[in-house]
Amino acid sequence: MTLPLNPAMAATFPPPVMEARRWLAGAVFPPDRPLLNVSQAAPVDPPPMALREALAEAALHDPQAHLYGPVLGLPALREEIAAQWSAAYGGAIAPTQVAITQGCNQAFTAVMSTLAGAGDEVILPTPWYFNHKMWLDMQGVTTLPLAAGPGLIPDPEAAAALITPRTRAIVLVSPNNPGGVEYPAETLAAFRDLARSRGLALIVDETYRDFDSRSGAPHDLFTDPDWPDSFIQLYSFSKAYRLTGHRVGAVVASEARLAEVEKFLDTVAICPSQLGQIGALWGMRNLGQWVAGERAEILARRTAMTGGFAALTGWRLLGCGAYFAYVEHPFALPSDQLAKRLVHEAGILMLPGTMFQPEGSPEGQRQLRIAFANIDTTGITQLFARLAALPPTTLS
Amino acid sequence: MTLPLNPAMAATFPPPVMEARRWLAGAVFPPDRPLLNVSQAAPVDPPPMALREALAEAALHDPQAHLYGPVLGLPALREEIAAQWSAAYGGAIAPTQVAITQGCNQAFTAVMSTLAGAGDEVILPTPWYFNHKMWLDMQGVTTLPLAAGPGLIPDPEAAAALITPRTRAIVLVSPNNPGGVEYPAETLAAFRDLARSRGLALIVDETYRDFDSRSGAPHDLFTDPDWPDSFIQLYSFSKAYRLTGHRVGAVVASEARLAEVEKFLDTVAICPSQLGQIGALWGMRNLGQWVAGERAEILARRTAMTGGFAALTGWRLLGCGAYFAYVEHPFALPSDQLAKRLVHEAGILMLPGTMFQPEGSPEGQRQLRIAFANIDTTGITQLFARLAALPPTTLS
Repeated sequence: MTLPLNPAMAATFPPPVMEARRWLAGAVFPPDRPLLNVSQAAPVDPPPMALREALAEAALHDPQAHLYGPVLGLPALREEIAAQWSAAYGGAIAPTQVAITQGCNQAFTAVMSTLAGAGDEVILPTPWYFNHKMWLDMQGVTTLPLAAGPGLIPDPEAAAALITPRTRAIVLVSPNNPGGVEYPAETLAAFRDLARSRGLALIVDETYRDFDSRSGAPHDLFTDPDWPDSFIQLYSFSKAYRLTGHRVGAVVASEARLAEVEKFLDTVAICPSQLGQIGALWGMRNLGQWVAGERAEILARRTAMTGGFAALTGWRLLGCGAYFAYVEHPFALPSDQLAKRLVHEAGILMLPGTMFQPEGSPEGQRQLRIAFANIDTTGITQLFARLAALPPTTLS
Repeated sequence: MTLPLNPAMAATFPPPVMEARRWLAGAVFPPDRPLLNVSQAAPVDPPPMALREALAEAALHDPQAHLYGPVLGLPALREEIAAQWSAAYGGAIAPTQVAITQGCNQAFTAVMSTLAGAGDEVILPTPWYFNHKMWLDMQGVTTLPLAAGPGLIPDPEAAAALITPRTRAIVLVSPNNPGGVEYPAETLAAFRDLARSRGLALIVDETYRDFDSRSGAPHDLFTDPDWPDSFIQLYSFSKAYRLTGHRVGAVVASEARLAEVEKFLDTVAICPSQLGQIGALWGMRNLGQWVAGERAEILARRTAMTGGFAALTGWRLLGCGAYFAYVEHPFALPSDQLAKRLVHEAGILMLPGTMFQPEGSPEGQRQLRIAFANIDTTGITQLFARLAALPPTTLS
């Protein structure tokens, strides 16, 4: 007799990044052609030494760094986010409207748990972030795919047409994962208006906000004094401060919403990692200039990506920004097969569009995501040399 | 218009420990009668300095300590658990049958997500661990309460009578939270037999295994070569190594089960805290003797608790062990009101039985949980002096 298996979990697809890592098994990467791993949005270097020293200092001398903290996070970190966000977005955000989570994925699952249960619906633009889709699947929440419009920007009117009485939220990611594109402020405002008028939540995942190419606030949603009635923002400390292994993220939402989020976090997390929070706070207070330099570096890589694809025959750059380029490839081969071939024939690991699109979608089979932030400009030059050397007619 | 609220989340009770902390607001604790906080199973001191130095060293010099790791945890830690558990329980546990989580609460939610969805049922003995109940509530899973038998030991035959076609699992905690009692090996074997014969999972949360008063293995479930067909074990590094603020726990289960668990963990966690895992591994490799001393200290406190209640008029000790004493109080006042009064009138913060029993249960109103591991023997002496000084007839 086999143990029960929740059918919703059985129907959820396995973790894409872990699956892609398995494609590396048996592959050989000669020294003159090392693996270019552009599969995961993951810094390859640790945080600056000064931040590591701050963590070491806390580990040695701050007893609280090892003990339980409040479920919704360290008060000082919640205050810092509230203060910096209020200034950056030109709005009023209180510390009680900020919660800290064990990474931004957890922020999403916590918020979504307060909004939608089995049988409810949530709108996700395609291509989507796969972990969002996985959570909805395993919870028995129906995903309503919203096909991206021109330039991978979703259309609020198309979204309006999808809404039913069971719809609970619209989820946007800007700058986008996997598409890279930065949604115009007007687009976000239009989605907020739609959400508000239909009684839905608008969730905007701003994990990549620190690498937005635009100056100033990316949207004016927080300038609306009534923002808590419809808007929920998610954030991650993983990319800006290279803290991926510490798992620190945040939710900005109404205090009433966070009281519900607290139930989820108490049950799933008890509290976020104390050292991770100490690192995030230290980063916010001390690494502003350093993050500006990181952003400039990412923007330089983005320019290299845009230029590279413009010169590459047959490929089409659909979106580019923050950590990602999202592209259409020229081969007859479906992207999930192509991605495996690229490991062995080009020494490149990237994720196929099938991982970001509804099952069976023909778009997904033509698309690939490249997490270019993981490789420097030398690596990007290499990437394009290898892509240019692929024989288009035989890769079919 | 207000935002949607998932009714299952709305119906979930708020975090008990956070609620209890709010009772402290406005209370005054004079220097000669400081607060005795026995509300949460939480070490009050940080880990030994050698472990803290190992964490500091990793923070400074191990780049991987700051970057993403595998979803199911550090291979070295999974191997260490497999090796130590195989020896301790006299069974065969492979590293691929071990997963690391962001604390044991997350281990429970990950495992339960693979077993039960909305509309399914799970058996929990009462008094239960509140976070287990909260997860089931917010997921729309029906809890089947199994009233504890004599000595707070649940009865497998009574459990058998509760099972319906929608039942998916039985969850036991041994040593028990909140009851403190250590379930006999025969009880656990009988529950395993029941689970196996009815096609259910038996989950045993062994968070407090390092403080079990018995010598040798607490059960023989792992000696059965077929254990993965029915048994799932949960563990926490929080108590043994005082790593509560790092959030590290574990699941031991079949490899097939862990492939499903991996979907949940990828979506909710991405990976456990790397530094936390490094600390847990260092502890497992170096702190065996130290943990033995911690256990001896806890057992001494347990003896003090048992003796104290034997001498205290009107109170009844229902269970005592690991971190907890679970008691019946002599007052007419319901426990949730009594617990608030105890803050102000005795300077003691403990959780009422209402937090561990089904809503409206008369048992819960007569019971209290005391997390005595949080106070030393001087504190325990104080505790009994203050309880003895309570005026029984007026506290009604």
